[in-house]
Amino acid sequence: MAIVTLLTDFGTEASYAAEMKAVLRARTRARLVDITHEIPPHDVVAGAFVLAAAVRAFPVGTVHLAVVDPGVGTERRPIVVRAGGHRFVGPDNGLLLPAARAVGDPRGAVIDEARFGRQPIAATFHGRDLFAPVAAALADGLPADRVGPPAGELADVRLPPPLRTTTRLAGHVAFIDRFGNAVTSLPGAWLDDAPPLLRLVRPGRPLALRRVRTYGDGRPGELLVLVGSAGTVELAVNAGRAADRLGLRPGDRIELELGPRPRPRRSRFVA
Amino acid sequence: MAIVTLLTDFGTEASYAAEMKAVLRARTRARLVDITHEIPPHDVVAGAFVLAAAVRAFPVGTVHLAVVDPGVGTERRPIVVRAGGHRFVGPDNGLLLPAARAVGDPRGAVIDEARFGRQPIAATFHGRDLFAPVAAALADGLPADRVGPPAGELADVRLPPPLRTTTRLAGHVAFIDRFGNAVTSLPGAWLDDAPPLLRLVRPGRPLALRRVRTYGDGRPGELLVLVGSAGTVELAVNAGRAADRLGLRPGDRIELELGPRPRPRRSRFVA
Amino acid sequence: MAIVTLLTDFGTEASYAAEMKAVLRARTRARLVDITHEIPPHDVVAGAFVLAAAVRAFPVGTVHLAVVDPGVGTERRPIVVRAGGHRFVGPDNGLLLPAARAVGDPRGAVIDEARFGRQPIAATFHGRDLFAPVAAALADGLPADRVGPPAGELADVRLPPPLRTTTRLAGHVAFIDRFGNAVTSLPGAWLDDAPPLLRLVRPGRPLALRRVRTYGDGRPGELLVLVGSAGTVELAVNAGRAADRLGLRPGDRIELELGPRPRPRRSRFVA
Repeated sequence: MAIVTLLTDFGTEASYAAEMKAVLRARTRARLVDITHEIPPHDVVAGAFVLAAAVRAFPVGTVHLAVVDPGVGTERRPIVVRAGGHRFVGPDNGLLLPAARAVGDPRGAVIDEARFGRQPIAATFHGRDLFAPVAAALADGLPADRVGPPAGELADVRLPPPLRTTTRLAGHVAFIDRFGNAVTSLPGAWLDDAPPLLRLVRPGRPLALRRVRTYGDGRPGELLVLVGSAGTVELAVNAGRAADRLGLRPGDRIELELGPRPRPRRSRFVA
Repeated sequence: MAIVTLLTDFGTEASYAAEMKAVLRARTRARLVDITHEIPPHDVVAGAFVLAAAVRAFPVGTVHLAVVDPGVGTERRPIVVRAGGHRFVGPDNGLLLPAARAVGDPRGAVIDEARFGRQPIAATFHGRDLFAPVAAALADGLPADRVGPPAGELADVRLPPPLRTTTRLAGHVAFIDRFGNAVTSLPGAWLDDAPPLLRLVRPGRPLALRRVRTYGDGRPGELLVLVGSAGTVELAVNAGRAADRLGLRPGDRIELELGPRPRPRRSRFVA
Repeated sequence: MAIVTLLTDFGTEASYAAEMKAVLRARTRARLVDITHEIPPHDVVAGAFVLAAAVRAFPVGTVHLAVVDPGVGTERRPIVVRAGGHRFVGPDNGLLLPAARAVGDPRGAVIDEARFGRQPIAATFHGRDLFAPVAAALADGLPADRVGPPAGELADVRLPPPLRTTTRLAGHVAFIDRFGNAVTSLPGAWLDDAPPLLRLVRPGRPLALRRVRTYGDGRPGELLVLVGSAGTVELAVNAGRAADRLGLRPGDRIELELGPRPRPRRSRFVA
């Protein structure tokens, strides 16, 4: 039986997420998995990142219902995207595309609201009245290309692609997790040939980061760089919060120097 | 198969909510849906509002297990309320009644603790030891009027009813959601004949709110009034937090002027 | 069908908890119950306490998947512990043992990573790639002693045992819940013969606590001592936050005087 995941910025204090589940539960016996309802309000980029990080853990056939939708009820289109055997349901604002690309070649269809909506559709809550009914129908066998006409080009939130030279990796902070790890957009494979010490470029002196396999390989407080569980490069501190220590926030650009350029340590007369 | 919903003020840091689910899972194959466990501690009115907002999204036959229960273990009665095919289980302190009224004509029964409790019943945790076993039994077919004797009059948390004149709507802020929307007690239908601009009465000059269909119909930062997904009037700001902007909190009284009373705009010599 | 519980320090903002559920859902039809994902990051002792508080509410046969794992990917062992018909899966760092002791006589086995892991195992995320697959296999019938060789002695987080004399109970604050109740390590049965008033030893004058059955037995604001739902002694305030009032934090040592030693109340000339 299919799995339906839920990802929203609704929080869990109000009943919004539960109302979506009510509609799903009333219509399908599919298994529900909350990815998160804690995406920062209206932050489509953060939602897209978390969905893309999660998607590969789910089996082919999963339906992903994702709603971070500041344009709800306006002319932004309600869509279904299919890719690699997964189905994605939500607004056409870029939220779904990075996850779809992570598992295949995305194709979109525009949802026929009159046919699939739960009437009357509240203009402020398509999650409950439009996307949830469509997700339930997909989970129970509706082909993704039957929800409506082909969507053509889809809205996207693609970040600047990470860059790599022989001496430097450049990318962005994609996410700060609960442990203070700074998850970046840099592909983890780029660390394969990296030296044992990398340097984070910052105003003033670059900071050395030791390349390790896992957090506990570092000494307490040591700055570390490693391949995180999403398959991308992470900056971490063993038993500490790297993002706080480095002053990093989501969206910040980061550069890592690869080369073993030794820096003379001069004596300093004044702290 | 029946759905059992859960609504509490237990939070999710401790195991209290999970212990209720353990009892449910061990006794019934019903599907569980968390409405929320984030009701502010002991806030029966907030719990009643969220439950009433959620209830109509669930199908007839659902069992709603709700525990915001500052009087747990005292002489307040443990009850089951039935209305419109829904069943509600929890303390007789008003928590259940607004939701029950939203779907039908409420009838209560007092739970026979000796017969339905999980012995020994912890005096501090009826959610786990009394309400959860009763909810499981109801989900599996126990008629609501068999849990014990008729309850007669039930405790209530009825707010002052909203008022409407030809020039003014008066009600309360029922809930502030994660987006900063101020959800009010005013029926959404009262906006049907309203003019395109309404005015929120406040100390000093009233503030104009534009009547729209959905958040994205407003300009960024614009004050809006619309019918929210719970079917009541909401005050909102597109891409902003209306409650913060207007200084509104749950329980605050609000008045909206309907009439197109034009206000002369005098020149002001000092900002 | 088996229940699988989840307890982690992953939070719910990122997709980590959902990725574990994805693996479980793809492999087993067991029912999932989140105990909590809000254990403070890396706080093995808090995780062990919450798991032990929850475990007895679950039926025999339950699989408990618990991950608070600062040493993930290092030489700390991945284990399965069985006790009293429950199975516990997680790191060998003491997290599992208090809960296992609460239901029986713990026996451990070291998980064969090559055989049971989801390849490749991310060095930073055994929860998803090792513990979840093992939990799914256990739920579907794998005997706990077949995951690998016997573990011998297991890491432990045993707190100093509570002490009892004829005049005094001494223990620790194990947990502060959302209501501000201070849940202690003192067995609830130790209150059976206690006098109606106990005194909390503190710098300066001891504070009197009235022994009651449930929160609502106290006057608003009154300091109370009672047996909480975990079966241990709790310090509480009716409609208030005992931990804030008493300045208590998790891990703090507490002493309760039992004897009815009357204290003369002298007049004080200066407040």
